[in-house]
Amino acid sequence: MDSPRVGIIMGSQSDWPTMVEAADILDELGVEYEARIVSAHRTPDRLWDYGKTAVTRGLQVIIAGAGGAAHLPGMMASKTRVPVIGVPVQTRALNGVDSLYSILQMPRGFPVATMAIGAAGAKNAGLMAAGILALQDADLAARLDQWRADLSASIADEPLRD
Amino acid sequence: MDSPRVGIIMGSQSDWPTMVEAADILDELGVEYEARIVSAHRTPDRLWDYGKTAVTRGLQVIIAGAGGAAHLPGMMASKTRVPVIGVPVQTRALNGVDSLYSILQMPRGFPVATMAIGAAGAKNAGLMAAGILALQDADLAARLDQWRADLSASIADEPLRD
Amino acid sequence: MDSPRVGIIMGSQSDWPTMVEAADILDELGVEYEARIVSAHRTPDRLWDYGKTAVTRGLQVIIAGAGGAAHLPGMMASKTRVPVIGVPVQTRALNGVDSLYSILQMPRGFPVATMAIGAAGAKNAGLMAAGILALQDADLAARLDQWRADLSASIADEPLRD
Amino acid sequence: MDSPRVGIIMGSQSDWPTMVEAADILDELGVEYEARIVSAHRTPDRLWDYGKTAVTRGLQVIIAGAGGAAHLPGMMASKTRVPVIGVPVQTRALNGVDSLYSILQMPRGFPVATMAIGAAGAKNAGLMAAGILALQDADLAARLDQWRADLSASIADEPLRD
Amino acid sequence: MDSPRVGIIMGSQSDWPTMVEAADILDELGVEYEARIVSAHRTPDRLWDYGKTAVTRGLQVIIAGAGGAAHLPGMMASKTRVPVIGVPVQTRALNGVDSLYSILQMPRGFPVATMAIGAAGAKNAGLMAAGILALQDADLAARLDQWRADLSASIADEPLRD
Amino acid sequence: MDSPRVGIIMGSQSDWPTMVEAADILDELGVEYEARIVSAHRTPDRLWDYGKTAVTRGLQVIIAGAGGAAHLPGMMASKTRVPVIGVPVQTRALNGVDSLYSILQMPRGFPVATMAIGAAGAKNAGLMAAGILALQDADLAARLDQWRADLSASIADEPLRD
Amino acid sequence: MDSPRVGIIMGSQSDWPTMVEAADILDELGVEYEARIVSAHRTPDRLWDYGKTAVTRGLQVIIAGAGGAAHLPGMMASKTRVPVIGVPVQTRALNGVDSLYSILQMPRGFPVATMAIGAAGAKNAGLMAAGILALQDADLAARLDQWRADLSASIADEPLRD
Amino acid sequence: MDSPRVGIIMGSQSDWPTMVEAADILDELGVEYEARIVSAHRTPDRLWDYGKTAVTRGLQVIIAGAGGAAHLPGMMASKTRVPVIGVPVQTRALNGVDSLYSILQMPRGFPVATMAIGAAGAKNAGLMAAGILALQDADLAARLDQWRADLSASIADEPLRD
Repeated sequence: MDSPRVGIIMGSQSDWPTMVEAADILDELGVEYEARIVSAHRTPDRLWDYGKTAVTRGLQVIIAGAGGAAHLPGMMASKTRVPVIGVPVQTRALNGVDSLYSILQMPRGFPVATMAIGAAGAKNAGLMAAGILALQDADLAARLDQWRADLSASIADEPLRD
Repeated sequence: MDSPRVGIIMGSQSDWPTMVEAADILDELGVEYEARIVSAHRTPDRLWDYGKTAVTRGLQVIIAGAGGAAHLPGMMASKTRVPVIGVPVQTRALNGVDSLYSILQMPRGFPVATMAIGAAGAKNAGLMAAGILALQDADLAARLDQWRADLSASIADEPLRD
Repeated sequence: MDSPRVGIIMGSQSDWPTMVEAADILDELGVEYEARIVSAHRTPDRLWDYGKTAVTRGLQVIIAGAGGAAHLPGMMASKTRVPVIGVPVQTRALNGVDSLYSILQMPRGFPVATMAIGAAGAKNAGLMAAGILALQDADLAARLDQWRADLSASIADEPLRD
Repeated sequence: MDSPRVGIIMGSQSDWPTMVEAADILDELGVEYEARIVSAHRTPDRLWDYGKTAVTRGLQVIIAGAGGAAHLPGMMASKTRVPVIGVPVQTRALNGVDSLYSILQMPRGFPVATMAIGAAGAKNAGLMAAGILALQDADLAARLDQWRADLSASIADEPLRD
Repeated sequence: MDSPRVGIIMGSQSDWPTMVEAADILDELGVEYEARIVSAHRTPDRLWDYGKTAVTRGLQVIIAGAGGAAHLPGMMASKTRVPVIGVPVQTRALNGVDSLYSILQMPRGFPVATMAIGAAGAKNAGLMAAGILALQDADLAARLDQWRADLSASIADEPLRD
Repeated sequence: MDSPRVGIIMGSQSDWPTMVEAADILDELGVEYEARIVSAHRTPDRLWDYGKTAVTRGLQVIIAGAGGAAHLPGMMASKTRVPVIGVPVQTRALNGVDSLYSILQMPRGFPVATMAIGAAGAKNAGLMAAGILALQDADLAARLDQWRADLSASIADEPLRD
Repeated sequence: MDSPRVGIIMGSQSDWPTMVEAADILDELGVEYEARIVSAHRTPDRLWDYGKTAVTRGLQVIIAGAGGAAHLPGMMASKTRVPVIGVPVQTRALNGVDSLYSILQMPRGFPVATMAIGAAGAKNAGLMAAGILALQDADLAARLDQWRADLSASIADEPLRD
Repeated sequence: MDSPRVGIIMGSQSDWPTMVEAADILDELGVEYEARIVSAHRTPDRLWDYGKTAVTRGLQVIIAGAGGAAHLPGMMASKTRVPVIGVPVQTRALNGVDSLYSILQMPRGFPVATMAIGAAGAKNAGLMAAGILALQDADLAARLDQWRADLSASIADEPLRD
């Protein structure tokens, strides 16, 4: 197996149905990744290790999904300069606005590339990761261009009614 | 100097004008504390050490204030079982609702005792800390009772107009 | 039966499915509690008595859950210096944001330790109560440490996919 | 002096600049009132007494203004069947939405007639009180009708520009 | 049949399942009322007539429920000095916050006594109407006092668990 | 003077500093208009008359600005089929979100063409009116095309820094 | 077939169940329209062409519906002076408030006539289009007047209960 | 001059005081960039050209800032696979929440890496761009590591008070 270029991490098993869209699009685009649970609160030392070893392990993008007081993406951005993409997972009472604010509103110094709330955001996280990797991978760039062209072509042009 | 029973920490020097109300009320009630900057993102290892040594250093309550993607209170709650009181610092664009959600919406396992947004919350954090310590300190309990009685007595009963 | 150290109160029978998580975790940690309905609006005198006798009855923490215009936690904090933990119960139209603001935004002098909206907040209220009691109960501190360690250990480290 | 028919109460001296609009319009309409500070949290027993004696003292409407976790109007509605009008005072971080939700979202059984946030709401509270009293006071009804007619007549009908 | 003292109006047939709680409590308390659809937008002239004749028809309170851009309560308050109680009906996209703001935020001169969003607000509208009428109807006052006493007595005092 | 094709109405003199942007752009584009105060609550009969005579007076667009519980645009849409453009005026406590929801969330049957909150919305209301009139006025269409071309040309293309 | 006077466009096939209400009311009123998918992001060039040819194709109103980061209505308003009516489609996490803000808050120069969130907004978009076309089509004006009269007449005037 | 690797674009001259923080940090880190005004609505063709030529011009990251109905970042993401970082500029009425939702909530296929609202977000956009470029530029990686180390070292460790 190739060493993963993208790390998909999430705070809880319950985030996987959302985050799987990131994994699926990376599969579709042929990008190696790993997917693991790394909880900021329950396994903070695992978060620490993951962040400290990210560069040396060759990770080039980290996709981090979390819900509620979602500290995983921002804490990861604190521990490594590898670009971190954050996915706010939708929540019950606050619909993911809590997740969003916890991920988005980072102080100067520690950017998190925040995506839309929920599964659409997870898929776009995968696409953003691919776009970053494509800067130095012409084959991936070509596959991404094709994927985008196919998406556009999929929009039928017949009138719905007229 | 007595060893501090309360640790007041905050993510940035700019939080001190808010958090000083916690310090002032502890001074007024005669509770030993320390006040330090511990940034979740800029000094994560300091946060780690602070959390790991909290019990052995004899801290009994930690008051943590932060703004925006406010990860300090929740990460501290992850690292120690010492009760953590969180103060959402008011912010520019989102008025502290971002701070609030980042502190409040902790997952099962890691409670943060969240106070009101801003300086009123900081003062109440000090009073909450005093109330916790008063459970095992009869003198402090008496001082706190007196402080509360004085507060009630300060409300004049003359009609404003009639 | 041991005299309860924690009082779990709530404004309505309909809050019990939320608040039972506080009771369950206290059972699990071996902390004595009582659970009663005390409505700020329907039984204000019961609230008064509960607050006035809290210290003498030996209560050391009060967990108060309520929804909507949730006045129970704050009014209880007005009547006793025993630490009050507030749980905002989720509501239909406003998702518990009404409960949250009614509990959180207390004026200087009367802190309420506010937890996350809904059942996660109720469980964390129990854990916060345990953390406060553990300051003077080494056995409970050990049980709480173990509970936290078990929670961390429960997070599997196998890759979800790679 | 006539016995007051309207009680204007508020949680804090700082609410008076808002609530004075209620007093002023009652003066203008010739309705007897009293204005006092009654803090739900700092003087709960004063709130209790005020509520319990409201009917026997001849109060016919109570106007209650408060900010933040604004418990005064709702607790007063719990203690007396005299109609309670609530005025949400504007706050710093949450602009009075906290006050609004704390006053508005009362459970079945204890209505509070909530007015707009801030000074406009205070003036309208006075007008609502007058409208209620006018149901049994033909002179006041005539004065209120005149006041309303004058307000309408005050809107100039010249074009602003054309 | 006695002439109605309370008019319950609403913008649409679809509001009746909410507003019926106002009617039911008035039935329970023995207050005469009528219930009609008066749409601010679809039947503005009916609104006009209803408002202009309210005093002469002997209406003493008008309860108006509406959803979305809810103009009925405020426009009615513009047309008559009879006290108007507004009920924000819950809506699909905005959960009734649109209804609430449209009813609550009236300008100086035209108060609407706003109730909680949804069915609880409708029931409280009926109780508020009864409280206003009770000021000049000792029998109704007694029935309302009894209803309130029964409500308080209905809260069981057995522990939920202990 | 030409008979006005556009009526600019607003609920209060205090809305004029916002609404003047609609008037100014219509002046700039050479569109005849009138500007008057028509308060939904203080002058409902003026609103009625304005709506009823709009078609016969030759008005082709009505621009209505209001703040808070902003009933003017929607009530006008109820009284005439002339297209109504609504401008939510910014407010103090709720920043114009109250105005927005009161104008936007109209029920089926009575559209209001809602613009952005505040002065930008007022200017765009004027441009929307011009766009509607331009459908049957080739000269105005040409002036509007030119205005739009000038706006685009006004964006400098020099680098800000490079 | 007559050349369409109204273009109904939407960002995705999934918007059609909302937007069909615009088509249906235009059918009912006898207004020729076309309905097509034009995605701002997936088919930007189609958007460009649609906008550039709108005037010459004889379109007089464009109704554009979109959800989330809803760029279609505003980008269309950038490309043509034909009046654009925007319909915010309801979304999952943010209930359509994201759609609303993306459509409503256009900068000076490019108005979008924003309708209510969801299907009611779509129907009103059709009615607004008809109202604009009726300015130069007396037959349509008569049909629209009749439709409005029928709507008003449909409100029963029997009491719901009394 | 080196060919720019980063394009900083913004919708209006008024966004420059916010976006200059992105330029400044890129200067500090020695990353070549260009800064231009590209308005989605006023200069859509410039946007088109910018997007279409981004890859061939050698741009590797595009930072796009905009306020209100902020369509620039998302439309740019539609036109190029070069990673787009979006900065929501703070606005008057809605504090930048309108900008945020317009940028963040992109549909599947077109990610925008959204940063915090306002100037902190602009600075972080520059840092995110640097982090992406550092993946293939060891010197830049070293400078970024040093910048991050300096930031952490800048947090004083003296107690604020104790």
